[in-house]
Amino acid sequence: MSLLKSFIEVSADSHFPIQNLPFGVFKPSEQSVGRVGVAIGDFVCDLSAISDLALFEGPLLKNTKVFHEDSLNSFMGLGKPAWREARNTLQSLLSSENPTIRDNKTFRERIFHSIFTVIMLLPAKIGDYTDFYASKEHATNVGIMFRGKENALMPNWVHLPVGYHGRSSSVVVSGTNLKRPCGQSKNDADVLPFFTASKTLDFELEMGAFVGTGNDLGQPITVQNAKDHIFGLVLLNDWSARDLQKWEYVPLGPFLGKNFGTTISPWVVTLDALEPFICDAPTQDPKPLEYLQENGKNTYDINLTAALQTKNMTSPHVITTTNLKYMYWTLTQQLAHHTVNGCNMRPGDLLGTGTISGPTPDSFGSMLELSWKGEKTIPLVNGEERKFIQDGDTVVLSGQCKGNGFTVGFGTCSGTILPANK
Amino acid sequence: MSLLKSFIEVSADSHFPIQNLPFGVFKPSEQSVGRVGVAIGDFVCDLSAISDLALFEGPLLKNTKVFHEDSLNSFMGLGKPAWREARNTLQSLLSSENPTIRDNKTFRERIFHSIFTVIMLLPAKIGDYTDFYASKEHATNVGIMFRGKENALMPNWVHLPVGYHGRSSSVVVSGTNLKRPCGQSKNDADVLPFFTASKTLDFELEMGAFVGTGNDLGQPITVQNAKDHIFGLVLLNDWSARDLQKWEYVPLGPFLGKNFGTTISPWVVTLDALEPFICDAPTQDPKPLEYLQENGKNTYDINLTAALQTKNMTSPHVITTTNLKYMYWTLTQQLAHHTVNGCNMRPGDLLGTGTISGPTPDSFGSMLELSWKGEKTIPLVNGEERKFIQDGDTVVLSGQCKGNGFTVGFGTCSGTILPANK
Repeated sequence: MSLLKSFIEVSADSHFPIQNLPFGVFKPSEQSVGRVGVAIGDFVCDLSAISDLALFEGPLLKNTKVFHEDSLNSFMGLGKPAWREARNTLQSLLSSENPTIRDNKTFRERIFHSIFTVIMLLPAKIGDYTDFYASKEHATNVGIMFRGKENALMPNWVHLPVGYHGRSSSVVVSGTNLKRPCGQSKNDADVLPFFTASKTLDFELEMGAFVGTGNDLGQPITVQNAKDHIFGLVLLNDWSARDLQKWEYVPLGPFLGKNFGTTISPWVVTLDALEPFICDAPTQDPKPLEYLQENGKNTYDINLTAALQTKNMTSPHVITTTNLKYMYWTLTQQLAHHTVNGCNMRPGDLLGTGTISGPTPDSFGSMLELSWKGEKTIPLVNGEERKFIQDGDTVVLSGQCKGNGFTVGFGTCSGTILPANK
Repeated sequence: MSLLKSFIEVSADSHFPIQNLPFGVFKPSEQSVGRVGVAIGDFVCDLSAISDLALFEGPLLKNTKVFHEDSLNSFMGLGKPAWREARNTLQSLLSSENPTIRDNKTFRERIFHSIFTVIMLLPAKIGDYTDFYASKEHATNVGIMFRGKENALMPNWVHLPVGYHGRSSSVVVSGTNLKRPCGQSKNDADVLPFFTASKTLDFELEMGAFVGTGNDLGQPITVQNAKDHIFGLVLLNDWSARDLQKWEYVPLGPFLGKNFGTTISPWVVTLDALEPFICDAPTQDPKPLEYLQENGKNTYDINLTAALQTKNMTSPHVITTTNLKYMYWTLTQQLAHHTVNGCNMRPGDLLGTGTISGPTPDSFGSMLELSWKGEKTIPLVNGEERKFIQDGDTVVLSGQCKGNGFTVGFGTCSGTILPANK
């Protein structure tokens, strides 16, 4: 079978071939209104225009207005059959074999925008944002650092995907700068805390799953059905102020150490686009309780990197390489656990995986782990070095799946840290 | 000065005299659409009708559409001058001296609905819900039970208002029934956890503060300005499954033990209505860091009760009586702390106080404390007894401030627990 190709030229290393078609929300210019698009090569394909041109002819999306909205929530809420219909229609319309748009200059002018000039918005209005702690390597590393090797993993960790609620108001789209946060910190040797700008600011390399269709309060989503409720994935940087977090987090968990900002990539890659990269998750021992048991392949082979660019560098330097497939608890287990008590999900809710660390020191997903809480330095390509993030540093996450002759990628998730308030 | 009176008859013990005028969102009937109202006596005054009749004549609310919305968010976002203008206009229009509505039958028919027949909705679309842990008595009680007397209060507790993020999707309005949640639990003596419907289901007697105007990401709200950002207060029941919570909460805090449901009362009592009841908060020792230091009276004298009604009872039996004024960390300190790192608030965000326990055993704000983790029983008026909540039990929170000749009250916050899913 020959590879599906678009009439839009897509370079071999592009993250956005016709096999991907990730969904996002964009404005063509500062003055225009947000609407839904898909990325293809170096272009954004405007789905509100495709809809206006009556090119969505399937039963679920004919005459739809969901692509004219400035968020994906309504589209997400339509469910998997509608997501598939959109993907199939777009793959057909963008295919090199189909003349409908290919040979119609007026259509092309209305539909395509340069990906370099559009303004990307948050893909969804996020009702609730939850962050898990699903990488065994990360949880073990942090546990060793803070509680010693004997107590590294808490007893509950191997039995359930530990998670906590994050802050949705401060989830921002890639490219948004964030100020270094201030708050309370305390040195181990001191009795009293002090007020400070965070001295140990970190990133966390994560992925985020957008809930598509939700569930009613009191009606759990089973682990078997969970996949149909997940719309797609993004890159997620869970910025973390380690010093603030350390002082505040007992007994109710992280708060100000996290909620000053969480950055996500703008393009949501659907599970259908990721299906060729489905793979086995790590073996779970002990076997989890029945409501978390699932069969088959339940995670994805997604290569992930984090790179850092200081003010003195012209391009970001990769400081860690990891993979979603290292994650112990799968996305479907996370969703099933989250709702097993009846907690309700809504379209556009976001589930972070937690930091994804691999088994080797060059695959750790945070500077806390890479610098082993500041005991060693992370060398950079230009001779600079880091233990934690400095003002003016930019952190760039990237992710991609390598297919046979094509790449399904996530683009980047980027943010620069500005100096703290005086 | 004689007491302001309305032409609407209001009984002496009503929670809703003209001095109160709490805001809520209601539907006159199942078929109608939600809109904003205020409670007065046994009536709901429809602000969309008042607006349609062009009776809001002030500069900020003339021709406004905010009262036609099915949430208070837009009104909250207008800020304190608009909240005051609405309150002043309504106190004038509803006053016994003012003939405008009093003597116009058509107006009265359009404006007033029986409070017993309307359907109350959530007052706001809650973007983020945060829960604090601000009562020293409660934190101490829980600390003694779980960590012993020596480690009851964590070292950070006296230095900052400990808080964590809750789940906004499952915040429901009073009168919504909730199923008993299921999840993992583990007995201390066992090695392995098991799946169960919660056996130790509890309420937490709290208040919730609705954020009115928010702040931009990166721009803290100072403790001095915090009061102007708070729209008003409601009663809040933070239902808690103690067994699920105990197994899951280390190290990232409560999750499934809480997020199956949080109930709030429908009427938001404004800080202006509470102003006559302002009082001193407990003395804080040690003195907090500068960003948490405030002068003057910063809390409110609000009597709070929790009552329980079993299936065999015809009215709820009060099992605890406490007061907001016992709370160590004030609402304004909570908001200042929450935003000191730049975390952004949006209109309609909800801040729970945490369980409000008083100094004596009859003023504890949860069954965990009242039954001292099940070591003793809580006697009920009909001879039944409880340690935790049983299926079919209804928990009713109430709150009121006693003024000179009038009561400013919150109505009730009620919910019944249904059996767990099979």
